[in-house]
Amino acid sequence: MIKVNENFLNIKDNYLFTEIASRTKKYKQEHPEANIIKLGIGDVTLPLANCVLQAMHNAIDDLSKKETFKGYGPEIGYSFLREKIAEWDYNKLGIDIDKHEIFVSDGISADIGNFGDLLDINNTVGIANPVYPEYLDVSIMSGRNKIIYFPFSADNNFTPELPSEKIDLIYLCMPNNPTGTTLSKKELEKWVNYAKENKSLILFDAAYERFIEEENIPHSIYEIDGAKEVAIEFKSFSKTAGFTGVRCGYTVVPKEVVAYDSNGNKITLNPLWNRRQCTKFNGASYISQKGAEAIYSEEGQKQIDENIKYYKSNCKTIREGLIKAGYDVFGGINSPYIWFKVPEKYTSWEYFDLLLDKAHVVTTPGSGFGTEGEGYLRLSSFGSYEDTITAIERIKSISINN
Amino acid sequence: MIKVNENFLNIKDNYLFTEIASRTKKYKQEHPEANIIKLGIGDVTLPLANCVLQAMHNAIDDLSKKETFKGYGPEIGYSFLREKIAEWDYNKLGIDIDKHEIFVSDGISADIGNFGDLLDINNTVGIANPVYPEYLDVSIMSGRNKIIYFPFSADNNFTPELPSEKIDLIYLCMPNNPTGTTLSKKELEKWVNYAKENKSLILFDAAYERFIEEENIPHSIYEIDGAKEVAIEFKSFSKTAGFTGVRCGYTVVPKEVVAYDSNGNKITLNPLWNRRQCTKFNGASYISQKGAEAIYSEEGQKQIDENIKYYKSNCKTIREGLIKAGYDVFGGINSPYIWFKVPEKYTSWEYFDLLLDKAHVVTTPGSGFGTEGEGYLRLSSFGSYEDTITAIERIKSISINN
Repeated sequence: MIKVNENFLNIKDNYLFTEIASRTKKYKQEHPEANIIKLGIGDVTLPLANCVLQAMHNAIDDLSKKETFKGYGPEIGYSFLREKIAEWDYNKLGIDIDKHEIFVSDGISADIGNFGDLLDINNTVGIANPVYPEYLDVSIMSGRNKIIYFPFSADNNFTPELPSEKIDLIYLCMPNNPTGTTLSKKELEKWVNYAKENKSLILFDAAYERFIEEENIPHSIYEIDGAKEVAIEFKSFSKTAGFTGVRCGYTVVPKEVVAYDSNGNKITLNPLWNRRQCTKFNGASYISQKGAEAIYSEEGQKQIDENIKYYKSNCKTIREGLIKAGYDVFGGINSPYIWFKVPEKYTSWEYFDLLLDKAHVVTTPGSGFGTEGEGYLRLSSFGSYEDTITAIERIKSISINN
Repeated sequence: MIKVNENFLNIKDNYLFTEIASRTKKYKQEHPEANIIKLGIGDVTLPLANCVLQAMHNAIDDLSKKETFKGYGPEIGYSFLREKIAEWDYNKLGIDIDKHEIFVSDGISADIGNFGDLLDINNTVGIANPVYPEYLDVSIMSGRNKIIYFPFSADNNFTPELPSEKIDLIYLCMPNNPTGTTLSKKELEKWVNYAKENKSLILFDAAYERFIEEENIPHSIYEIDGAKEVAIEFKSFSKTAGFTGVRCGYTVVPKEVVAYDSNGNKITLNPLWNRRQCTKFNGASYISQKGAEAIYSEEGQKQIDENIKYYKSNCKTIREGLIKAGYDVFGGINSPYIWFKVPEKYTSWEYFDLLLDKAHVVTTPGSGFGTEGEGYLRLSSFGSYEDTITAIERIKSISINN
């Protein structure tokens, strides 16, 4: 008799975005005249950079001729892309990472979820609260039920104390989704040292790295000494270059990073991830990889930064507008997300409804990201400039003491 | 202390294709004048169909304009593609599958590997011998060590007896890689009935379905009554439309198919796979999905079948040539692969070396696919017409009794 993995029966359905969609739809039906602006979305909206478009057209032309046709590529990505990533995203920052430590994929959501394949299910798991829900969901799916949450909230100024318990597997998302805040180099150093002392592994999700603008904020965890022994880094072209529909990202598994067998022997993870990917994955699209390669030139970097600048300008509009309106505002400086506290008497969802009704603006309730998100809303900078201006003017027109 | 999944330490490295590459390279270095023809390869070589190329160029144009830009798509694939798949690959064959049962992905290698996430690790596993090595590797990685092999060889005319032991999870690849043979509708019915009687689950890999030309060979396992309760089907655009570099495939999880919890309650797998994909996968590339959609028209079907015809003509050349040369030959009628017996006194690898040396033709040793493959070689029809003709002429010129 075929038995199900019963851990799947323990996952709660995450209704956050379906509930947002359903409330928005209902409001729209009851108020067809309302011009609703959606600033809840965590997805890019600007067209791809020209260099990317051109490279992908060329890649399709390669597939149109027998002489240049490409079938299966290397499961872990073409060298042309892995070399550029190593050079531009690491070596130029003074970080010694080479192409054998880079694994290209069709997106890091899959990599973050699949990396657990390599690890024992009895490892304890540490997860920030609030945070992107995937880390919790994939842990529960695989049967990792010993979850330790560490608050990552305004109460601790978004700089959590190191856990007093021993955590084997630590998920960090920096800059953090949804709070839009991040850790300084000094704070991140504490986590790396904790991992070294406790023989833990950090899974470092750097999806929003391109939005960092302050100094002393690490763009890669490998800026920290010793991190290569204890950290895996996930980076995506999704937010960096608008690839959410194109699908390309990469995972860095340094040669030094280890886990331990039951006798306490060190097992290097790089060959294990290679084996996993070569067995259960067949490489990212040639077209997407050619598109990703195109951002690695002076001109390419300039082009993708145009989009980032546009979104960052929206961030500024949102941040400054909310501050003027009297809200406690966090994030938005090194991140596309702005996090703000709703007036005391409201829950996240109640204030979501209020802003939908009075400002016709769709936000994201913070409680959907964990208990410590209750009482907060997330706004995103991925809307258009015009919509962002209008939305913030409307929010400002509502008294915070209403 | 972070513990590794020790099951990963039990996987044998599969050196088949690296060993082939290394022997070929060495021979080439020692015999630089040799014009070596590679017929070992299991990858397509012809350019993509025009309809696909055009659709993908158009998709990139969509990504160049704000009005038509696409970010994250549905994790399980766009409706435009899932509807076409249901209509063209199922409904037109009289099979009642709808789009809610179709899950588009970036390739079925990932789906076949990841589907195990939904199932308990203590399930017994049934695997053909010889067969594509992924089924065994993913089973071992996940800790499923109770493996039952069923011979799928010339000795049983490639129609294995039903297992006497109870198998919970059965992998079938039909048409089979590497033997190029397949099961008739009547034989496949036996397996479906076995699965129903034993409450087993069949994972049916139909990657080579487009190469079927004989009648009474099922193009889908759902042609068999009751299969929707016990079978998952994996289909790929890789061999069908030359998408090995483009990456798109799909998995069918019918609403009726179930596994069981520890109390013996039925658990429907469709919502579980949906949850898995929405958590650990972020959708296939919009460009690839648009390319795949393009094959679903009369003209599209005609265009992709041109390539299939070309490969099938190579099959005929290989089959007939080998038969004339006196070999026992199997497959190649409903499959791109031809399987033949080497003379008694040779192992697969010894005859691989002999053909490399005397005919300058690279083959694939059958022993790399399982113990029952020993004494056989696989040839592929994915080479060029000219190379295939030349390679077979050379093989024919070698006496089989040498």
